[in-house]
Amino acid sequence: MAAAATTTTTTTASYSTKHNLSLPTNHRLNNNNSLGFHSLRIRPLSLTCSRSAKLSVKASAATPVMETSKFSSSAAPTIVDVDLGDRSYPIYIGSGLLNQPDLLQRHIHGKRVLVVTNTTVAPLYLDKVISALTVGNPNVTVDSVILPDGEKYKDMDTLMKVFDKAIESRLDRRCTFVALGGGVIGDMCGYAAASFLRGVNFIQIPTTVMAQVDSSVGGKTGINHRLGKNLIGAFYQPQCVLIDTDTLNTLPDRELASGLAEVIKYGLIRDAPFFEWQEKNMHALMARDPDAFAYAIKRSCENKAEVVSQDEKESGLRATLNLGHTFGHAIETSYGYGHWLHGEAVAAGTVMAVDMSYRLGWIDESIVERVDNILKQAKLPTSPPEMMTVDMFKSVMAVDKKVADGLLRLILLKGPLGSCVFTGDYDRKALDETLHAFCKS
Amino acid sequence: MAAAATTTTTTTASYSTKHNLSLPTNHRLNNNNSLGFHSLRIRPLSLTCSRSAKLSVKASAATPVMETSKFSSSAAPTIVDVDLGDRSYPIYIGSGLLNQPDLLQRHIHGKRVLVVTNTTVAPLYLDKVISALTVGNPNVTVDSVILPDGEKYKDMDTLMKVFDKAIESRLDRRCTFVALGGGVIGDMCGYAAASFLRGVNFIQIPTTVMAQVDSSVGGKTGINHRLGKNLIGAFYQPQCVLIDTDTLNTLPDRELASGLAEVIKYGLIRDAPFFEWQEKNMHALMARDPDAFAYAIKRSCENKAEVVSQDEKESGLRATLNLGHTFGHAIETSYGYGHWLHGEAVAAGTVMAVDMSYRLGWIDESIVERVDNILKQAKLPTSPPEMMTVDMFKSVMAVDKKVADGLLRLILLKGPLGSCVFTGDYDRKALDETLHAFCKS
Repeated sequence: MAAAATTTTTTTASYSTKHNLSLPTNHRLNNNNSLGFHSLRIRPLSLTCSRSAKLSVKASAATPVMETSKFSSSAAPTIVDVDLGDRSYPIYIGSGLLNQPDLLQRHIHGKRVLVVTNTTVAPLYLDKVISALTVGNPNVTVDSVILPDGEKYKDMDTLMKVFDKAIESRLDRRCTFVALGGGVIGDMCGYAAASFLRGVNFIQIPTTVMAQVDSSVGGKTGINHRLGKNLIGAFYQPQCVLIDTDTLNTLPDRELASGLAEVIKYGLIRDAPFFEWQEKNMHALMARDPDAFAYAIKRSCENKAEVVSQDEKESGLRATLNLGHTFGHAIETSYGYGHWLHGEAVAAGTVMAVDMSYRLGWIDESIVERVDNILKQAKLPTSPPEMMTVDMFKSVMAVDKKVADGLLRLILLKGPLGSCVFTGDYDRKALDETLHAFCKS
Repeated sequence: MAAAATTTTTTTASYSTKHNLSLPTNHRLNNNNSLGFHSLRIRPLSLTCSRSAKLSVKASAATPVMETSKFSSSAAPTIVDVDLGDRSYPIYIGSGLLNQPDLLQRHIHGKRVLVVTNTTVAPLYLDKVISALTVGNPNVTVDSVILPDGEKYKDMDTLMKVFDKAIESRLDRRCTFVALGGGVIGDMCGYAAASFLRGVNFIQIPTTVMAQVDSSVGGKTGINHRLGKNLIGAFYQPQCVLIDTDTLNTLPDRELASGLAEVIKYGLIRDAPFFEWQEKNMHALMARDPDAFAYAIKRSCENKAEVVSQDEKESGLRATLNLGHTFGHAIETSYGYGHWLHGEAVAAGTVMAVDMSYRLGWIDESIVERVDNILKQAKLPTSPPEMMTVDMFKSVMAVDKKVADGLLRLILLKGPLGSCVFTGDYDRKALDETLHAFCKS
């Protein structure tokens, strides 16, 4: 954020009109802040303001709930800082951010950029991104590599195409890789950036809800192996993440819903007020209300950023972000990548984790019902595909990354809404019962 | 080194006879230390001594020169610490270290180990290493994967065999990868360890001079791309490096000489007394005098450790370790991996870098002659293969990792023996003249 001046929430900033930046003016908050700014979250960006004091953004599960129906879109990005010491980076969130070249260009340090995207996203946004990278900046040369679209291409063969392009283009250590697309592109481009010449700069432009609320935060990169998801990869942080919420306009309904599975997860594991907000606003999200989405993305990024800041390499706390993922990965691996979207598998997996938590006596039945309801509202599956068997689940779960010395640890809900544990200390019978309850054989 | 008690150089330590550790008793040093210990370097290891004060080992180019002919072998390892903050690790150097299971076992934290080795080394040392990992330690299970031998297999297809084996063996995050072999095995196993489940523990047991003096220190890991060497990889540090000098007994002459090219390099770039020692002791090294080798390995590791400690990610200083490598990599890439050994290419590349340094007026003619002489003593090439053309050099050098924004930076000697620079600020004419002087077309 070298050139980014920031404003604190109690200061009226000076805004540059020539960059067409304006403040969101009609946020309605319940914290009685007379300036109309959220007390902790919103960092409007001014490109001319010279104040450089860094605002520490600390998300809290007790954040007041916003009513999104009163929001309006704005060109001023909200910034969520991911605090990781010398690997910290900003996430810019807002409408029309791809029309603000400065946001990207401040994070490009060399003269060469490689945009990694796929056959679906390239026709929609590649020209726009190249323009954002180069307008007024003739020294920068942009190459691009367009990969086939889909989880089934998240493999070593496809990754090699990125290396081939980078090497054939004679990119050097000062180049920047830009991921333009969903989670698959972000994970592959990130791992390529981590590995090319042992590490080059990396920027993420996520274009799906899933990528915006999950894979854009925290630096997990990688590819799948035929025997399991994300088994090969690196922890590697980007220089910045740019989330232009306008890109959601072209996202298919199923993809949109898939991302909501992760949004719902944040509420369940650590942010009860956010879950309650979702219960009230799921209709707005399903109707693609841009302000509802901007808030859901921001709150999701903040939740994830806070977890990742405390546990970058997933020694414990960070694993809680995988609620529903152990069951979900088993579904994706057994059913074949590409039949179900990641969020669809996670949704069914979440139902199974919640079911198991209930069988263990760790949560009330009301939580089971609320999870079922909200997932149905989001048009997400609440049970695994019929072809899944108990043995399929057990076989894949045995090679899960969360197995330690042979013991499978799971993320389970425990206590009131918004509380979870990551543990291998549970009655195996409950796991067996859950698997049998959701599988015919 | 969790369980390793250390002794300082001015203390007589208490030694455990049951572990068969003894002090080297007849080192002859020229620093008049009455205890007969080298004042900076030697850290005999005692497994029973309870002193845990950490001795800071700081290598210096002005280290007194040892006369190795008076040395005797010893089971007590010398330790060189690579100081990288929370990624620091020890290098154990000595004869018979594979017969000391404690050395390895203290660095194994989980219950699963994967030994990565090749078809040449496996018949010689795999059983011995498995024994060292498991004797008295029945909880540890060791799997192994045996790769084809040679630089031409340092590629993604071969790397995938390591991932396949790790995943099929259901290894988890607490496992340890052990590299048993030369530089190719170390680089591939290290990159696999960096990438498997986004990073698992890693131990190096280098069995060639090249790996012992170069690739075992500093955490550079990776594989080749068809268009260039080491273009895909990671910076990833091991838990420890164990150098059993007895493994050199089975090393072919050409491999031995190849490693000496890197030993000679340390003298040239930063350690004139070490270069002078080599000039006096090259006959002993060529005769495989074990004590001469132990000293050469230790001094090389210390030099590299000091450089890497100051510049882990190669932002400047570390690049000086690549003297001769830019020319050398061009030879390896153009001539085809496997025809020349790495050190052979580096030797010819060093002669070219020295020639260019002389053409620039940066060094005396005497250095050119001394480099030529010592490489010939080591039976290393002093010019590139006849098939190399100027265009071949230029084409490969253009994609070298040291190119920044289009400018090729080189490591060149400048000043008295033991001084070098890493610079893109040189007369292009000198580079052209050197290339034409060493190529027929």
